[in-house]
Amino acid sequence: MESKTGEPSEGLTLEDLAVGQVFVSGSHTLDASQIKTFAREFDPQPFHTDEEAAKNTFFGGLAASGWHTAAITMRLLVSSISISGGLIGAGGDLSWPRATRPGDTLHVETEVLEIRPSRSRPDRGMVTVRTVTLNQEGQAVQILVSRLVVPRRQGYSHD
Amino acid sequence: MESKTGEPSEGLTLEDLAVGQVFVSGSHTLDASQIKTFAREFDPQPFHTDEEAAKNTFFGGLAASGWHTAAITMRLLVSSISISGGLIGAGGDLSWPRATRPGDTLHVETEVLEIRPSRSRPDRGMVTVRTVTLNQEGQAVQILVSRLVVPRRQGYSHD
Repeated sequence: MESKTGEPSEGLTLEDLAVGQVFVSGSHTLDASQIKTFAREFDPQPFHTDEEAAKNTFFGGLAASGWHTAAITMRLLVSSISISGGLIGAGGDLSWPRATRPGDTLHVETEVLEIRPSRSRPDRGMVTVRTVTLNQEGQAVQILVSRLVVPRRQGYSHD
Repeated sequence: MESKTGEPSEGLTLEDLAVGQVFVSGSHTLDASQIKTFAREFDPQPFHTDEEAAKNTFFGGLAASGWHTAAITMRLLVSSISISGGLIGAGGDLSWPRATRPGDTLHVETEVLEIRPSRSRPDRGMVTVRTVTLNQEGQAVQILVSRLVVPRRQGYSHD
């Protein structure tokens, strides 16, 4: 990618983003083994670690930890959106409308909702995005509305 | 734990919780190796995977993925709050006011903010809690306000 203004050649800056822009990721398929490995370390509850025990729980069968779905979402985001300086989130609002199950194939679709240059820091801005994590049937398993720190193009404000 | 009403002997129900109640977890210490292992799988960006490369980034040095901090928080929650039927979150609002660094010792403090019995499902309710993840200096590295699904005591509404 060539550049006239000297910004780093890799990664989007605030000026490259537009409200309504959509980024679609590749996909990741989970199996029961991945679900249990993650859960044993970070969310050791029967509905995430044991198919049999999971049957008599709220989930009615093995389900991934929501934090596993969130981590896979991040992995898919990193490989589908290249922001100059990296993909840096300040936080967000997270919901899990449906469980992720063994065998699910997930991908994420991210839409730019708002772009706000920082007043105090002329070198950056905040971008609000909605990232929906979908299973193979097009059902949302996670909705994340997050705020990203995105740099402005170098020297842009002085051009 | 003895019980006169026949509820499961392990785990709290909606009736056991009160607004203002606080749960404090044990602690977990992270090292650079844990930070890099998690990041290689779920958030492969230089500031999470490489001390040297991290120096010239937003973080100014190696930092844990926010999703790693979130996952450790869940682990600490599972071992500090025992809810009947398990700790089941429907989502929440998440922020990372400060990075988690190699060597940090984290613990979580959770306060009950709101308790709302379900109108449509008399066997359960929603409980809003604020979980603050603190480092060894008492600084918040994550604030999570989440909604938990909590069962009511068996037969409680018919007593």
